[in-house]
Amino acid sequence: MNDMARSDEPRGVAVATLTPMTPGLEPDFDRFAAHCRRMLDRGANLLAVLGTTGEANSLGVDEKLRLLDALGESDIPGGTLLPGTGTCSIADTVILTRKALEVGSAGVVMLPPFYYKGVSDAGLHAAYEEVIQRVGDSRLRIYFYNFPFNSGVPISHDLIEGLLAAYPGTIAGIKDSSGDLDNMLAMCRRFPGFGVFAGSEQFLLPVLEAGGAGCISATANVTIGLCAEVLAAARAGKDAGALQEKLSAWRLAIQSQPLIPALKAIVARSTGDEEWLPLRPPLTALDQASEAALDEALDAAGFAPAA
Amino acid sequence: MNDMARSDEPRGVAVATLTPMTPGLEPDFDRFAAHCRRMLDRGANLLAVLGTTGEANSLGVDEKLRLLDALGESDIPGGTLLPGTGTCSIADTVILTRKALEVGSAGVVMLPPFYYKGVSDAGLHAAYEEVIQRVGDSRLRIYFYNFPFNSGVPISHDLIEGLLAAYPGTIAGIKDSSGDLDNMLAMCRRFPGFGVFAGSEQFLLPVLEAGGAGCISATANVTIGLCAEVLAAARAGKDAGALQEKLSAWRLAIQSQPLIPALKAIVARSTGDEEWLPLRPPLTALDQASEAALDEALDAAGFAPAA
Repeated sequence: MNDMARSDEPRGVAVATLTPMTPGLEPDFDRFAAHCRRMLDRGANLLAVLGTTGEANSLGVDEKLRLLDALGESDIPGGTLLPGTGTCSIADTVILTRKALEVGSAGVVMLPPFYYKGVSDAGLHAAYEEVIQRVGDSRLRIYFYNFPFNSGVPISHDLIEGLLAAYPGTIAGIKDSSGDLDNMLAMCRRFPGFGVFAGSEQFLLPVLEAGGAGCISATANVTIGLCAEVLAAARAGKDAGALQEKLSAWRLAIQSQPLIPALKAIVARSTGDEEWLPLRPPLTALDQASEAALDEALDAAGFAPAA
Repeated sequence: MNDMARSDEPRGVAVATLTPMTPGLEPDFDRFAAHCRRMLDRGANLLAVLGTTGEANSLGVDEKLRLLDALGESDIPGGTLLPGTGTCSIADTVILTRKALEVGSAGVVMLPPFYYKGVSDAGLHAAYEEVIQRVGDSRLRIYFYNFPFNSGVPISHDLIEGLLAAYPGTIAGIKDSSGDLDNMLAMCRRFPGFGVFAGSEQFLLPVLEAGGAGCISATANVTIGLCAEVLAAARAGKDAGALQEKLSAWRLAIQSQPLIPALKAIVARSTGDEEWLPLRPPLTALDQASEAALDEALDAAGFAPAA
């Protein structure tokens, strides 16, 4: 692993935590906190709450602030938190980022402003810079969030290089949900000490071997045990290839269906708690055909959720 | 024009109003209100404030609420307002839509939730339905906002049909910024009485001739006089073809460069007020080469901004 990384930097497996919703489609904090604790108990190093998987982009600013406040008052250690705080607007991103720091988060995962398309790296640099300066807090650690499929605004290596040069103590890493392993490995090589998290546990081992930080993954909500095994084996210098192969098969089986509905369905089943099923629109629950296809894919991959 | 449209429904030319920013990148309300007044004086029927052109997707929820409050306290008639209120989240969309009604807006232009991609029409239907039910106000008139380039979430005709059937008094029309005239004309045919606004004055005349409502346009910030002439000629049953041709040439010249920066540059020049230039990141001002190219294109099109 990379010698330039400080020992206190967030590393390992982060669960992109699901947000359970009440029947009235409000965030269900009690179930959320219980799920966060379960993830830590099963080996999660970090909780990337309020991300894409957590339907955070379907939550209002006040709802997100209340969830962060509630986490701050819970027994979840702040140092395990990597909340998503990036919005379309500098103003809301600053409000959410300040709150994330207030509750002691290890860092934040920050989407670029993602409404306007075809914007320049200079514009994105200015946007991140404006957030950093307005937050004005030396504790801030920003992990870029590269997710072109949803955001439509990719994070280029030149953008990273420019912001790393300007704010070396603040720009801490990236969650790369591009699905492009070559891109992850290229960033590991080009930016030593930069915390590269794969956006899927499918790439956990190769990214760790390249000196990356680990993964931040949606499917880790239901694969966390096996993710932790791969991480432990890799850290112990053992051959983790077979474990990684099994983990990748699980991931691919789950993502054969719409990911967030599939994950809520799996959690509902494994916890025996149907209240896990609601999703906030525009996401919708799996239909029966998709559920059946998911079951078949999970069976074929030998998927076994932790009890 | 369409006989089924109620006479009090918003029709004509709406300016997708620019939002001037202070040097500190805050909305500059005084310049904004003055610009709104100028647009009405020059013939605008409606002001589509807080839209894409208004950089509203770069403003925070509180900033947008303050701008709407300030408009409500100004001498701009509420009945001329068509504020943009659609965000990624139902919660924030409801807050903004309620405020738009509070200040007497004629309707709202509502983006679909636009972060999650590849969502179903059923999910979008549920999202709009949830907003309508939470707002719970019979005064609400929703204009869909179809802008696939920026939102990545197109508004399908089937989605419109389903919501029109469920909420005929609330679903009022659409701003179509797809750039696809055929799509606009098809909606005029399929949904009689539905207020189809072209997203560009380039399509004003054909959309009016097909029974559409008019246009909601960014470039109308600087072409409003000529837009109003085309509208008046069309309404009087005169041949507006030559006027429309000139208007289209102006539009195409302006959009040869990044649109919002180009518009702010033109307004800054025509008002002699450099304070119009700042843009909020991720948008950036035109560089010198783009300014020169814009000038050349405007000259070639015989563009003459109103004094």
